[in-house]
Amino acid sequence: MRKLLFLLLVAFSVQFSFAQTEDSIFIKRISDEILTNGKAYENLRHLTKKIGARLAGSPGMVKSEQWGLRVMQESGADKAWMQECMVPHWVRGGKDEATATYTEPAAGIKKMNIKTKFLDIAALGNSVGSGKNGLTEDVIQINSFDELEKRKEEIKGKIVFYNYKFNDTYVNTFLAYRDAGQYRGQGPSRAAKYGAKAVIIRSMSHATDNNPHTGATRYDSAYAKIPAVAIGLRDADWLSEQLQKRNVKVTLKTNGHFLPDTIGHNIIGELKGTEFPDEIITVGGHLDSWDNCEGAHDDGAGCVQTIEILRAFKAIGYKPKRTIRFVLFANEENGLRGGNKYAEEAKAKNEKHILAMESDAGGFTPRALGFSGSDEQYQKVLSWKSLIAPYGCTEINKGGGGADIGPLNRSLKTPTASLNPDTQRYFDIHHARSDVFEAVNKRELELGAVNMAAFIYLVDKYGL
Amino acid sequence: MRKLLFLLLVAFSVQFSFAQTEDSIFIKRISDEILTNGKAYENLRHLTKKIGARLAGSPGMVKSEQWGLRVMQESGADKAWMQECMVPHWVRGGKDEATATYTEPAAGIKKMNIKTKFLDIAALGNSVGSGKNGLTEDVIQINSFDELEKRKEEIKGKIVFYNYKFNDTYVNTFLAYRDAGQYRGQGPSRAAKYGAKAVIIRSMSHATDNNPHTGATRYDSAYAKIPAVAIGLRDADWLSEQLQKRNVKVTLKTNGHFLPDTIGHNIIGELKGTEFPDEIITVGGHLDSWDNCEGAHDDGAGCVQTIEILRAFKAIGYKPKRTIRFVLFANEENGLRGGNKYAEEAKAKNEKHILAMESDAGGFTPRALGFSGSDEQYQKVLSWKSLIAPYGCTEINKGGGGADIGPLNRSLKTPTASLNPDTQRYFDIHHARSDVFEAVNKRELELGAVNMAAFIYLVDKYGL
Repeated sequence: MRKLLFLLLVAFSVQFSFAQTEDSIFIKRISDEILTNGKAYENLRHLTKKIGARLAGSPGMVKSEQWGLRVMQESGADKAWMQECMVPHWVRGGKDEATATYTEPAAGIKKMNIKTKFLDIAALGNSVGSGKNGLTEDVIQINSFDELEKRKEEIKGKIVFYNYKFNDTYVNTFLAYRDAGQYRGQGPSRAAKYGAKAVIIRSMSHATDNNPHTGATRYDSAYAKIPAVAIGLRDADWLSEQLQKRNVKVTLKTNGHFLPDTIGHNIIGELKGTEFPDEIITVGGHLDSWDNCEGAHDDGAGCVQTIEILRAFKAIGYKPKRTIRFVLFANEENGLRGGNKYAEEAKAKNEKHILAMESDAGGFTPRALGFSGSDEQYQKVLSWKSLIAPYGCTEINKGGGGADIGPLNRSLKTPTASLNPDTQRYFDIHHARSDVFEAVNKRELELGAVNMAAFIYLVDKYGL
Repeated sequence: MRKLLFLLLVAFSVQFSFAQTEDSIFIKRISDEILTNGKAYENLRHLTKKIGARLAGSPGMVKSEQWGLRVMQESGADKAWMQECMVPHWVRGGKDEATATYTEPAAGIKKMNIKTKFLDIAALGNSVGSGKNGLTEDVIQINSFDELEKRKEEIKGKIVFYNYKFNDTYVNTFLAYRDAGQYRGQGPSRAAKYGAKAVIIRSMSHATDNNPHTGATRYDSAYAKIPAVAIGLRDADWLSEQLQKRNVKVTLKTNGHFLPDTIGHNIIGELKGTEFPDEIITVGGHLDSWDNCEGAHDDGAGCVQTIEILRAFKAIGYKPKRTIRFVLFANEENGLRGGNKYAEEAKAKNEKHILAMESDAGGFTPRALGFSGSDEQYQKVLSWKSLIAPYGCTEINKGGGGADIGPLNRSLKTPTASLNPDTQRYFDIHHARSDVFEAVNKRELELGAVNMAAFIYLVDKYGL
């Protein structure tokens, strides 16, 4: 009996180590293919430089959808299609303008000079405009929601300047983003509640430049919708300094408004499974970007990585056991209609989704994979760590997903995963005009695809 | 007895976990100080933008030494001094020029057009010039030393073009550098052995641009010293393509030569140990850079990180048990005279050096620490992993050091350590004109200093 057990153990070990070796050889092939013949970088160049900004409803969106479909086909999808969904259509509507005005003592007795300074701002996504003539009001600096509540009597008729700082002490910068994010999301309505006329929000960034960082705000329908803008960090510091010394008025002119919803699409490419075609693995990024940038890291990177996995699988002749869907989601930034649509259709068709993975944290050097699923599934995924680690993702963390695949998880309980690249540079460029192709490094981008491809391969081979 | 053992174990665990907690709190304080009040980035701006290139013997070297001494003092060193050493003084001596000439069939019968193309090159460090009039010879492409040996009869009188490619499939790019590095180091003399007149070496890089990457070459005194240049990657591809179709001549004009050795200095700042002042911990980077760039990553980053550790220790009032020396080494790039001098003096004075640590792999996001010492020491260092990991260095690898601290290790057996940042972007800019301040990210630079400071603190507290 003991001998049998021993032999069984040996057999198991041999098989296990044989499988590990086979897997590590296969993953090296994927990596070599992507690092040597990768097309992600050139695809990103096209998406950012030839198409550029592609907010839901914009002409850029339409062009990027056509591009996405074509590249899915060229990269070897068995089938590629557009999944229609209605998307919101917010437009900036013109140039955002802000001028600070203040007086300071001049040379002559009792004379005052009027000084002005242009501020670098960007209206928040989904925000309303100021009206044609703009609005001019005194500015009150508010450093936190606690302070807002304490000083609620002083808010009426003013422009609230939320100067809440991005917390530099978080090593993971996404924690600072989550922390400061409430001011962009809730700030306008919480100020409107007390009669504010507009809000200016310190950009959620620790960049050393002065670019404003936009992003979606959410109005609470209980209160007036007021104009809301983000301000660059240097201008925020300047404004804060002025306000300690004197009264400052700001004239804001923004033109944001919604046009009627329009038609957008998720772009889907598919490799049909050879053994379990009904089991679906989804991998994707979102195709839309903010209107003020090329959306190279957010999320051009996730899109071209997604396509690169498809291309590399085909290039090395990999025939997946399960069906793999490569998805460029519509409208992540200000509506999530693409992700919702994808989940709705999956539910309506009673599809079996075994995993959804997303890359939407920038095309930076890969450091970890995130995974959300049962404990048993997590242990299985964790057993692959040493196979993936050589390519950059040295950790597999609990908790992973993405905005676009959240609906699939909520409606079908699909386990979700994310590529977690290094976070240090993301909020320098996030939602700002500096999110351009030049900010992406070719190898970092490619290695992201390598790590994702390795993970998808293992899930395809062993299931979850 | 069992109970006693149990109580002892509990006591030990409590003490151990108390120490771990105390250490993790202290390291968080270091991190907060550096990420909030850090001066490394502004120091780097000064070093790169106000001083710039600082090759051994150059005016930039002298200015950077004065700057280094001043900043050491301002950052709170108990004592700061210059350690004199003779340094080589190689100069580029003028503009490097290269023109390719070839003929191609023209419209008329039997007519040929002469075509020329300027090539973007940089003479290798320590290389000899071509003479005033330059040299013009046929080019022969050689892809490897194996090929050189096979075709040795064809080399005489020609310019050898080593087109050995940087291997993209290595995830750790330093492996590709080591692999290709032999062509820069040995290539000129190995070609001269067979009568080559000059060599052109494909830049050791996988950049997407065309900047040539210089670096030191080493002549073998048995053969003629011939001019040697690096060529940008696009021009290398172009040249290779041309050579497959036709004969190409290149005219090379370089002016490199040595002036007499001159005086350089290691810049040293010191915090005197309060308990074991005779036990010395060294941490440093090298102050010199190549002459064709700002040397921001190589190794301005290591210098300002070194100074930042000193500044942060003083700022939070840390009084080390052991003596910590912060060293900006002279002449790493083309002589190593600074590192040699430091080790010689340490030996002559019979100093006790317990650790030397170096940052010379760029100011990129930290990923690992490298350590070279006894197995017992490595196990001790490894026990600190969980304390350092939250700041980016999630691994402590066997094998770590740096060129400047190598001599100390060789002469005094001092254990050595290195900061191992992410390697993906380093060889885009290494020894090229693109190694500028703008290529450095503030937080990545600072986190490097945080991880080094944490390690130095632990070695200081617990010894090795």
